[in-house]
Amino acid sequence: MKAVLIVADGMADVPLKELGGKTPLEAAEKPSLNHVAEYGVCGIADIIEPGIPPGSDVAHLVLLGYDVMEVYSGRGALEAIGSLVDVLPNDLVFRCNFATVNDKLMVTDRRAGRIGNADATELARAVEDSLREDPPETGGTLFKSTLEHRAILRLSGPNLSVMVSDTDPHETGVKVLKARPLDDSQEAINTSKILNKLTQQFHKALKDHPINKARVKKGLPPANIVLFRGVGQLPEIEPLALLYDIQPAAIAVSPLVRGVCKTAGMRLLVADGATGTYNTNFLAKAKTAVQALKTYDFVFVHVKATDLAGHDHKPRKKIDIIKNIDALVAHILNHVDLDETIIALTSDHTTSSVKGDHSGEPVPIAILGPNVRRDDVKEFDEISCARGGLNRIKGRDLMPILINLLGKATKAGS
Amino acid sequence: MKAVLIVADGMADVPLKELGGKTPLEAAEKPSLNHVAEYGVCGIADIIEPGIPPGSDVAHLVLLGYDVMEVYSGRGALEAIGSLVDVLPNDLVFRCNFATVNDKLMVTDRRAGRIGNADATELARAVEDSLREDPPETGGTLFKSTLEHRAILRLSGPNLSVMVSDTDPHETGVKVLKARPLDDSQEAINTSKILNKLTQQFHKALKDHPINKARVKKGLPPANIVLFRGVGQLPEIEPLALLYDIQPAAIAVSPLVRGVCKTAGMRLLVADGATGTYNTNFLAKAKTAVQALKTYDFVFVHVKATDLAGHDHKPRKKIDIIKNIDALVAHILNHVDLDETIIALTSDHTTSSVKGDHSGEPVPIAILGPNVRRDDVKEFDEISCARGGLNRIKGRDLMPILINLLGKATKAGS
Repeated sequence: MKAVLIVADGMADVPLKELGGKTPLEAAEKPSLNHVAEYGVCGIADIIEPGIPPGSDVAHLVLLGYDVMEVYSGRGALEAIGSLVDVLPNDLVFRCNFATVNDKLMVTDRRAGRIGNADATELARAVEDSLREDPPETGGTLFKSTLEHRAILRLSGPNLSVMVSDTDPHETGVKVLKARPLDDSQEAINTSKILNKLTQQFHKALKDHPINKARVKKGLPPANIVLFRGVGQLPEIEPLALLYDIQPAAIAVSPLVRGVCKTAGMRLLVADGATGTYNTNFLAKAKTAVQALKTYDFVFVHVKATDLAGHDHKPRKKIDIIKNIDALVAHILNHVDLDETIIALTSDHTTSSVKGDHSGEPVPIAILGPNVRRDDVKEFDEISCARGGLNRIKGRDLMPILINLLGKATKAGS
Repeated sequence: MKAVLIVADGMADVPLKELGGKTPLEAAEKPSLNHVAEYGVCGIADIIEPGIPPGSDVAHLVLLGYDVMEVYSGRGALEAIGSLVDVLPNDLVFRCNFATVNDKLMVTDRRAGRIGNADATELARAVEDSLREDPPETGGTLFKSTLEHRAILRLSGPNLSVMVSDTDPHETGVKVLKARPLDDSQEAINTSKILNKLTQQFHKALKDHPINKARVKKGLPPANIVLFRGVGQLPEIEPLALLYDIQPAAIAVSPLVRGVCKTAGMRLLVADGATGTYNTNFLAKAKTAVQALKTYDFVFVHVKATDLAGHDHKPRKKIDIIKNIDALVAHILNHVDLDETIIALTSDHTTSSVKGDHSGEPVPIAILGPNVRRDDVKEFDEISCARGGLNRIKGRDLMPILINLLGKATKAGS
């Protein structure tokens, strides 16, 4: 028995006036998603607790069966790992944004006009040079530009602590924040000092950089500062293979989700043309999943685009992506042996197209498989699934439910 | 107000091809079980957590309202107590199997051909004699044959620990295992030594025993060794009478379930012809329950046969037993005052007739009673009950729900 878990990031939504009171899932044509719902068992899940909007890092740890309260150690490290940055125990990792500030260090654009990879890579080199010339007093430092405005800062050394506040104000029109120690430890005070020094140092290295001068000439916001946020450390996670006696693989592009999967000990597979954006190659993901099921007994497929549409307040775009996800699921349904394959569908959180952000409503779940207790739900959406045979579960219950269907659950007692 | 809780062991199942995609409960004629569902409130319960298959020991502790993480102390002690072996605090109790080994101590049959009670009792005497002649260096030892190949070993004394591994390899074709200490304590090392010495000593006492010689002559596997497993101690459990202010009685035959009930301070009642097997007298259990409700206000009725049918991959047999359980419930419905009796039905775990073992799906529940919030579920099965008014609860919730219906719940706060 094998299982494939398809997670459409932020696919769950709220009812929208512009869709006549329907959610994008309710409004979309999705015969294959409905097939899974009709012949399987459905339900809804609170990823964390009712009403709590989960971040994508937390949500994916939960969907893979981890106790987030126990293992979560910040997004920075997970995203770094997914961006092929090595993270060792005790390293501190910050998510960084190239951003735009004015002369008074007031933030005018938190993403420097969503600066492209080419400019960002060039500017990152200037930051790296400055670190080589004037390294902070710690064991080692690495700065790496990852995707568009995003970058990673890794600090290594003995005198560091995660107990520091962000320099990113998370809004525009206010000054870059001073990093502050969040406890009385010498380590937290030292880490804050390093961040505040690096903020000045990076600003100096960036503000008159030829790339930024060229950007200003073109009317683009200069990437003249680096904001630090989301500090994290390597999470202590037992690999899925040891927890559940499975051979797991993941098809995901988003650095954060790749980081979670890699940390969970999953083999990361590459689907040609999968980009983690609107224009991803859905069919390539499906084909890679079908191929992977020949070797691995647990295959996780992640689609990011639904979440982007929610953040961009574009429910009709989300409907289009759901149609593509339906084609992805159709391909899998048509190319695996349904007598020995479990197919599970869900979303890692609700992304409300109204507020353009994650929201605390539960997500729909459907599971199709040979020994599944089929209920009478016929459509895969937030409302129909709430009447299903799984009722309302926790996000963390999904993995044990799938492991039980795989016949690999361990008896409690005797 | 009084309550009767009827637990059909392993009655819940998964949809089966040979039953046209139905579970045994869905396929069975069961007008009385359906009556309870139709006029009562229904739901599903995760005995432990979603996806986790419970053992029968753990499941029954849970259904009686105990926090298993807190009170579970191994199956050995519970089974011993149910077999009328006295267990005191700090005693160690092992479940034992009479088994068959070859000259190289390789296990060829873990149950010595499911040896009958007569032969087992005779051989147990030889084991007891050897213990008298050459007792292990500990406070006291008791060996008792219980049912067929099953037996109990009780060790008492100051220098003992549960932190020892089984000698039972739990499979054939491999050698009897050495008991190993599972921590560094002197007690664990000493206990391992005792078990390894007893393994040799019992083997010596058994291998040339006339009973075994006769078995070999008849082509039966000799019971020439004793395997130790499932060590346990007396669980520290507050009696139900004190926890809930009820007078509880239990009608159960299986030694394990009797042990749980006795440990919970329930009066064990005897129903004539109740055997804990396929051929149990269902009506006698019903009559005993009706009689008991005149004296006790909480009566627990256990039926084992449904579980056996699941383990034996015999869903049609399970359907037959469900019909008998239906007759049992019909008798109770017809002979108690429904204005002052709560009738609750459930199963202690799912036993999948496909895999022939416990499985992690939830169990159905139905509760009939004067103040029950009746829902619109009309049939008692795994899928129908999932739509019921109780929704999805935890196994441990059942007892407080019944206690509340009995009007004996204690207010939290004021």
